[in-house]
Amino acid sequence: MSRFRIEYLVTCLAGEEIEKKAVGIALEQSVELPLSVLNEWIKENTAGRVESIKQTSEKTYLVECSYATSLVDGDLTQFLNVLLGNISLKPGIQVINADWERIETWFPGPRFGVDGVRVNLGIQERPLSCSALKPIGFTIDQLADLCFQFAVGGIDLIKDDHGIADQGHAPFIHRTKACSEAVRNASELTGKPAWYLPNITTKPSKVLDRFRQAEDFGAQGVLLSPQLCGLETMAELAASDVNLPIMAHPAFSGTYLGATNGFSHSFLYGTLWRAFGADFVIYPNNGGRFLFTLDECIGINQAALDPLVPFARTFPTPGGGLDRNQLPEWQKKYGNDVVFLMGASLYSHPEGIKVASKEVLAILENKI
Amino acid sequence: MSRFRIEYLVTCLAGEEIEKKAVGIALEQSVELPLSVLNEWIKENTAGRVESIKQTSEKTYLVECSYATSLVDGDLTQFLNVLLGNISLKPGIQVINADWERIETWFPGPRFGVDGVRVNLGIQERPLSCSALKPIGFTIDQLADLCFQFAVGGIDLIKDDHGIADQGHAPFIHRTKACSEAVRNASELTGKPAWYLPNITTKPSKVLDRFRQAEDFGAQGVLLSPQLCGLETMAELAASDVNLPIMAHPAFSGTYLGATNGFSHSFLYGTLWRAFGADFVIYPNNGGRFLFTLDECIGINQAALDPLVPFARTFPTPGGGLDRNQLPEWQKKYGNDVVFLMGASLYSHPEGIKVASKEVLAILENKI
Repeated sequence: MSRFRIEYLVTCLAGEEIEKKAVGIALEQSVELPLSVLNEWIKENTAGRVESIKQTSEKTYLVECSYATSLVDGDLTQFLNVLLGNISLKPGIQVINADWERIETWFPGPRFGVDGVRVNLGIQERPLSCSALKPIGFTIDQLADLCFQFAVGGIDLIKDDHGIADQGHAPFIHRTKACSEAVRNASELTGKPAWYLPNITTKPSKVLDRFRQAEDFGAQGVLLSPQLCGLETMAELAASDVNLPIMAHPAFSGTYLGATNGFSHSFLYGTLWRAFGADFVIYPNNGGRFLFTLDECIGINQAALDPLVPFARTFPTPGGGLDRNQLPEWQKKYGNDVVFLMGASLYSHPEGIKVASKEVLAILENKI
Repeated sequence: MSRFRIEYLVTCLAGEEIEKKAVGIALEQSVELPLSVLNEWIKENTAGRVESIKQTSEKTYLVECSYATSLVDGDLTQFLNVLLGNISLKPGIQVINADWERIETWFPGPRFGVDGVRVNLGIQERPLSCSALKPIGFTIDQLADLCFQFAVGGIDLIKDDHGIADQGHAPFIHRTKACSEAVRNASELTGKPAWYLPNITTKPSKVLDRFRQAEDFGAQGVLLSPQLCGLETMAELAASDVNLPIMAHPAFSGTYLGATNGFSHSFLYGTLWRAFGADFVIYPNNGGRFLFTLDECIGINQAALDPLVPFARTFPTPGGGLDRNQLPEWQKKYGNDVVFLMGASLYSHPEGIKVASKEVLAILENKI
């Protein structure tokens, strides 16, 4: 019978024994009963199983458990349940890996990924740049004008701020049409491609409609906050007939990054969201207005680009307070397969957005 | 212009000033730009605003911020974004309240709630009992037999274990039909009503279909893990034309209960899930195999039943290791408006499930 493995970093609290805690995980995430009341068939076929335990410090252990693939049967929401359903409620259990090889066919992975995005944008080597339309409350004309300035200056990807939805100030369809057109006009002037990515995050039952409307009204990609809509909603988009890349935003996901529970940073953004179909994963860069460490950021990048994971590679997209003047340093740290997402650093340029965008392009093309 | 308030418990880290941190919350959750680059119209109309700060200990503060209702416009997924989108990624910020009165019309609230459930079940005073069908891997015949034994013994509500989905061992539709019938047969024998609640948790695009199938094939309610499907999926069910109560399961929600971030226990399970349409909220009871404190559990109960919140009251449903022999003590602590969810404690009864269920009924009817 086919099984797949999940790896945990387990921290024992005072009085806890690792063997007991490990078995507790395997049972909690499968049959939810003590071994003593299970019959032999259930023990063999549906109960989770501890495969290995390896101590890594006084109180921490790497634990591998295996689960029957029949528990999930390709239902990705049920996969999340086996991954972190009830143990999300227990301290000291963090999911850090899964053996994707065994379960690869359940997941769409990114439709485009790093290579597909580079081909479609026509940018082969350098890091990409991205900015966000802000603030919420701007009219469609104001947002379209921002789009034009960013694109004419040389920003590659222009996305909605993730709080811009379908509010009366700038309803979704009209905004998508106007902003896509502004970006196309700028591209025609400069001869350099640029994309507009409207935010399609809304109630799960409407997200696919918005995804299709984004394509119909001229956008070249979309922004989605998967933790707000349910992760499988993103997977359904990635497997749909709408041919646009998805940029995933971390809104509402931060609590999954517990110090000793939830998911590791690299697993959540680099691997899990990649499996569920994100072409880009936005995360708060080290040194910005959030508190991710440099190691956590590098870990996300490595996971998103890991060639051993059997899905197209995802573009790491650090943002959240990134300073345009520090791009060369970040490029040294992160390499070329990265998207630099900048907001306030471009809005606050004394000579305006277009000049700021030109400077960014020059830096990324090594012309400064 | 109409505004609504959100209340946070804010913990200042070393070097943080509360005034700056509070303004940071209000801006992060709305315009995502510093005040210095905002025009007057935006400041007035879409930027969040700090309304009050009150120190509660050396490092903790109650902070109230207000947001324009136009930021949300009734889009519940966008409401979650304003509630805890980006600040889920920042330490020391916990959402503890919202002024539901101002935004009541956005939310369905429970369709039945405590009063509706009591009327339909015909149980006016006492606490209700609930058990779970386990383990995953049982066939439909085995599960239906469990249903019959629980119901004929006197358990009021019989739900699927939350890991039972649509696996080959017991596919959803056939299971729903067989288990509903088993419960009806038992009720006809005893003259006492009992309900079967199948688990409808799956990809968001299919959940409404399962909800309808549950009704069509004879179930009297459903189980849903809203954090796996996206919270607004639950709200859409509660507002749909399918007339069944929803029991909400906490799978995948535990990381939102940070010590100093995410949501308070009472807000998440007692208030937020109530607003989003849960007729019952399951949570891990104090003293079981999870680690909720008694105060946290009582806080959830009080919020779920709080008459000042403008939605029907939700049945608190403590479970996760509840011992049938301790029901009288829990009843003293929690009162009558509660559902006691027991699994292993009934499965492990030496004389079997039917006898265990009879004992539970006798305890709840004060006959022991």
